[in-house]
Amino acid sequence: MVESVLARDPRAAARVLTLIDNCDPLAREILKRLYSRTGRARVVGVTGSAGSGKSTLIARMTEELRRCKKAVGILTIDPTSPFTGGALLGDRLRMREHFLDESVFIRSLATRGGHDGLSGCLCAAVQVLDAMGKDYVLIETIGIGQDQIGIAGLADTVLVIVTPESGDEVQGLKAGILEIADLLVINKADRPGAEELFLNLGNLIGDTGVPPFKTSALNGEGVSALIDGIEKHRAEFAASGNHRQRSLDISRAQVLASVGDQLMVKVQRKLGEREIARWAQQIADKTVDPYTAAEKILGKMGL
Amino acid sequence: MVESVLARDPRAAARVLTLIDNCDPLAREILKRLYSRTGRARVVGVTGSAGSGKSTLIARMTEELRRCKKAVGILTIDPTSPFTGGALLGDRLRMREHFLDESVFIRSLATRGGHDGLSGCLCAAVQVLDAMGKDYVLIETIGIGQDQIGIAGLADTVLVIVTPESGDEVQGLKAGILEIADLLVINKADRPGAEELFLNLGNLIGDTGVPPFKTSALNGEGVSALIDGIEKHRAEFAASGNHRQRSLDISRAQVLASVGDQLMVKVQRKLGEREIARWAQQIADKTVDPYTAAEKILGKMGL
Repeated sequence: MVESVLARDPRAAARVLTLIDNCDPLAREILKRLYSRTGRARVVGVTGSAGSGKSTLIARMTEELRRCKKAVGILTIDPTSPFTGGALLGDRLRMREHFLDESVFIRSLATRGGHDGLSGCLCAAVQVLDAMGKDYVLIETIGIGQDQIGIAGLADTVLVIVTPESGDEVQGLKAGILEIADLLVINKADRPGAEELFLNLGNLIGDTGVPPFKTSALNGEGVSALIDGIEKHRAEFAASGNHRQRSLDISRAQVLASVGDQLMVKVQRKLGEREIARWAQQIADKTVDPYTAAEKILGKMGL
Repeated sequence: MVESVLARDPRAAARVLTLIDNCDPLAREILKRLYSRTGRARVVGVTGSAGSGKSTLIARMTEELRRCKKAVGILTIDPTSPFTGGALLGDRLRMREHFLDESVFIRSLATRGGHDGLSGCLCAAVQVLDAMGKDYVLIETIGIGQDQIGIAGLADTVLVIVTPESGDEVQGLKAGILEIADLLVINKADRPGAEELFLNLGNLIGDTGVPPFKTSALNGEGVSALIDGIEKHRAEFAASGNHRQRSLDISRAQVLASVGDQLMVKVQRKLGEREIARWAQQIADKTVDPYTAAEKILGKMGL
């Protein structure tokens, strides 16, 4: 399976991602062997609220990247769907033009995730796509930014998408946008209000940052310039030493997450399901609180 | 602080929630002491995609519950905002009419969360509101359903909100809606297409479930019937024994999360920041992968 992934076999990659999704212990063994082959892909986070046109923009970006002969991996996460499985039919449909292209790998992540939840799965999924030679890994998400290894920690470049209709958001932008967005993108730039938004955002950013990009995912306008912007950002990012720092941060978070995962598997095995159920019962009966119960469990195990 | 929370002091509750948000160790001590006073509140999850009118509906539900002299706690989580802080101005504005009512407690959860992330914070926040005597705790979220202790695990009753405009969603609904929704609510029922959606959803649900509720958060229509529906669901839920099972599941997840949290604090302390940084460096340099590093760390610590 490791060999097949390195040979860019999409079916093997899909199988590995399923193992990751299911928290199969085999996934860890495969990831161990792929790890030394990671670190080459440009990882781009694409975030923005529902309706900002993320999927369509990603489809256009993929088109442009394929024109430049780049291999593309797309990971979508959509927490708007509280439904198991994670794959939103609508999103997939919007990307269907790329389904038959062997150099484009598309995957919606389910989030049954283990201890480290979605962020751990996402991190592992990026590593698989990276190891299989994708030049770009595009991650579509609304709001994983708040998770352990957030999108901002994982991606080289984070695009925040806004639209002329998103009045509420621009209020939100003021609060902390500059902390997460590497590039601001005004999508649906053909709509009324785009020019005003462009000026407002320009003022908001001031002299310190890059001006917002304007795209129309509908007709592909501005997408090529956006790709150039991503390349430029990535180059500056690498030169500034921030890339090194981010990679240290990810490594730190990853090793701690893996320590936590492995420890919890050991603890649960040692404790036994019956003992866990006994504690759960006492907690449900309010004869002990979960925090004290945890202290007692650790004390008993000598941890 | 414990006494003040039990005496329903909103300022004390707000301070405890801040401690929880910041993963302050003091929070655990307070939660321990509040725990025996929890379990009385009706916990209602309100989920649906952005634009489905969750906030406005919650404001209307709160109005109705206040009319019946019920104390209400509202927790909002909005992962559409990748911005630090978590509080979306827009949402808060929509609920401002309740800001001056001492019996309504409103809080947006940030999600810096520890090991168990948002779900752990949310669980703790519900316990605080429950202990402070809220009759209802309404949780607004888009898609925390996929987290460890999801909204479906935490709430007694989960409302899934759809609107006549949400064509995409109804496709998604077919996949797994019945697994999570206790009650389906068609909001914006005054809009065109509501009647058709009602029939479609009715057919989808079949004979097994309750028919969808129709509400108009704009004028408050159907909100009183929805509250009755929630009460009825909660009573049936308690009678069926499922409530007991859910409480066991939450207890189990909580004690394991707390074990994990406490273990990780111990491990990180024992390991030391310098040693963690050394591993992170090696991982970033690709001389070791994070999974093997974790195994070695645990081996060295004799765990």
